[in-house]
Amino acid sequence: MNPEPALVEHISLIRPLDAAAMAACRRRWDDISKPLSSLGRLEDMITTAAGIAGTPDVSLSHPVICVMCADNGVVSQGVTQTGSGVTASVCSSIAAGRGCVCLMGRRIGAAAVPVDIGVGRDMEPQGSLVIKKVMRGTNDISLGPAMSRAQAARAILVGVDMCRAFKEQGFDILITGEMSIGNTTTAAAVASALLDLPARRAAGRGAGLSDAALKRKIAVIEQAIAVNRPDPRDPLDVLSKVGGLDIAGMTGLFIGAAAYRLPVVIDGFISSVAALCAKLLAPACRDFMLPSHVSAEPAGAAVLEALGMNGIIDCGMFLGEGTGAVGAVALMQLALEVYRSMQTFEQANIEKYVKQN
Amino acid sequence: MNPEPALVEHISLIRPLDAAAMAACRRRWDDISKPLSSLGRLEDMITTAAGIAGTPDVSLSHPVICVMCADNGVVSQGVTQTGSGVTASVCSSIAAGRGCVCLMGRRIGAAAVPVDIGVGRDMEPQGSLVIKKVMRGTNDISLGPAMSRAQAARAILVGVDMCRAFKEQGFDILITGEMSIGNTTTAAAVASALLDLPARRAAGRGAGLSDAALKRKIAVIEQAIAVNRPDPRDPLDVLSKVGGLDIAGMTGLFIGAAAYRLPVVIDGFISSVAALCAKLLAPACRDFMLPSHVSAEPAGAAVLEALGMNGIIDCGMFLGEGTGAVGAVALMQLALEVYRSMQTFEQANIEKYVKQN
Repeated sequence: MNPEPALVEHISLIRPLDAAAMAACRRRWDDISKPLSSLGRLEDMITTAAGIAGTPDVSLSHPVICVMCADNGVVSQGVTQTGSGVTASVCSSIAAGRGCVCLMGRRIGAAAVPVDIGVGRDMEPQGSLVIKKVMRGTNDISLGPAMSRAQAARAILVGVDMCRAFKEQGFDILITGEMSIGNTTTAAAVASALLDLPARRAAGRGAGLSDAALKRKIAVIEQAIAVNRPDPRDPLDVLSKVGGLDIAGMTGLFIGAAAYRLPVVIDGFISSVAALCAKLLAPACRDFMLPSHVSAEPAGAAVLEALGMNGIIDCGMFLGEGTGAVGAVALMQLALEVYRSMQTFEQANIEKYVKQN
Repeated sequence: MNPEPALVEHISLIRPLDAAAMAACRRRWDDISKPLSSLGRLEDMITTAAGIAGTPDVSLSHPVICVMCADNGVVSQGVTQTGSGVTASVCSSIAAGRGCVCLMGRRIGAAAVPVDIGVGRDMEPQGSLVIKKVMRGTNDISLGPAMSRAQAARAILVGVDMCRAFKEQGFDILITGEMSIGNTTTAAAVASALLDLPARRAAGRGAGLSDAALKRKIAVIEQAIAVNRPDPRDPLDVLSKVGGLDIAGMTGLFIGAAAYRLPVVIDGFISSVAALCAKLLAPACRDFMLPSHVSAEPAGAAVLEALGMNGIIDCGMFLGEGTGAVGAVALMQLALEVYRSMQTFEQANIEKYVKQN
């Protein structure tokens, strides 16, 4: 493994979670007049946010959803239902505040920022769109590498830089999203390479493939691995050879969130694959990640397991864009109301529940 | 099985879901510019709400949380961490808008209505409290029946009547909650009787029991079943002998929701046990129920399975009061934003995703 020097510099900024802030947060949870730990893992997630913010005074009122938009050359192999043009259309929709994730995000007070990190066609400046195009879509992974190692590193840096900006802009939690036709194929290829999973166990139906199309997708992933021989000990090699610009950009979001101290929520399968790449490049960034939903994609569970994460929502969502992570932040915000406003046992004049074990 | 005549009258009001409204709702989902079915079971839940409302124009902006508050004589057997006094204290907190479920509910626009259906001490009129006391706490189920069959039927009718009032008041979705120290014991006893589960598989740690206290709880449940010999084919017999007034009241909420056409959200273990009683008394009411979270109590999964339900949230919550169901409604509201405001494929000028299978 040999990440680019520019990446090493950001990774070296990562500091551990603030143990004192987390201890104070746990004390506050334990003082609240309700059964101990009865909001389950939502309490742990708020405690992680305290460790990241460096204060038990946690705020989740300014979420930002960063949607990495890019195209994938492998789409020409017929692994998707729709053409690559949809990436640009949905990217524009999100920029205009009309995408699914925008509508859902508005309910939790979130801003949605799409990033053109590699859309196949040129995107005009519009709405909230950030243009950071590394290349106009990747090359077809079934024929050779998606991009060069330098391009993958540049895409990661785009994600890292977005985090620095988000932190400066006062956002307090980051939701990772993507819009990239063909990226369940590339994400499955990356998962297959990193976790040594056979393609048939890593590939799923994406937005709704037929049996025949799923077979083709599996064959394409097998071919991509055979042609490129990505090195599983080198995530940058894997990302550049069989990944995509959206996945690389999200990898950068996970690293940048740790470097610039933002809690960062994993969305579905693609996002969790990026989180895994980030963890392999910079193990310390794992502590800044929060889980959201369990993806319907077959390798989703294996990737979460490799991250040591369990989803908190399981309802068969596979919309992408960060929509599952929006759900998780909505649940965290509910728990935070209790954390911030609920009276203590002392205030309520109720005997404290005591953990008996 | 021989439910009270007054109950039969309400049960006879239950009509099937409106198939035309559900079909129109599904058409709308399929026209929305996003991968088909990609909001998973949230789409199904909204579709159920359409079938209940009789229109695809679903609204979830006026939720009401009904919290059934009651005490349990079995608490004197040492099956809980805290004394019965906590039931009244938390009931008052909720009436004053200060309970955990109120704080969480406010974020989703919900009103919280606690019902004194059997609190051990007399409750003064206060805040949003509704006083419908059937008795001042139940008798100890380990020594004899919790209440008479007539009292159980009256408690169920309290729940049914609350639903009629909620519907008249313009609420559009009902969240079921409870506050009743000792009710993981009674709910486990009811589940044990109805599903023929051994007490050791039905009883859990509730708000955090020690190993020794859990053992005692199991023995108490075994004794309650042995002493009362509830008839598993007669849910009213089971409820009155080994249940509680909160569970009976919630059973009424599930029946009343179906009779007066409100979508009704199951909360945790206690609520799911009440839902099971309702389903056994009036099978048609099953269609009006929506799942929320998977309870940490050991019999939680078995009860949901008996209902043919899967939770959509799984994060180890066990706070009660309806808090898990508030989370589910929060997720439904996110999906509803997409349902109501997202552009169609035609409007977005995007080729439609087609289900290939």
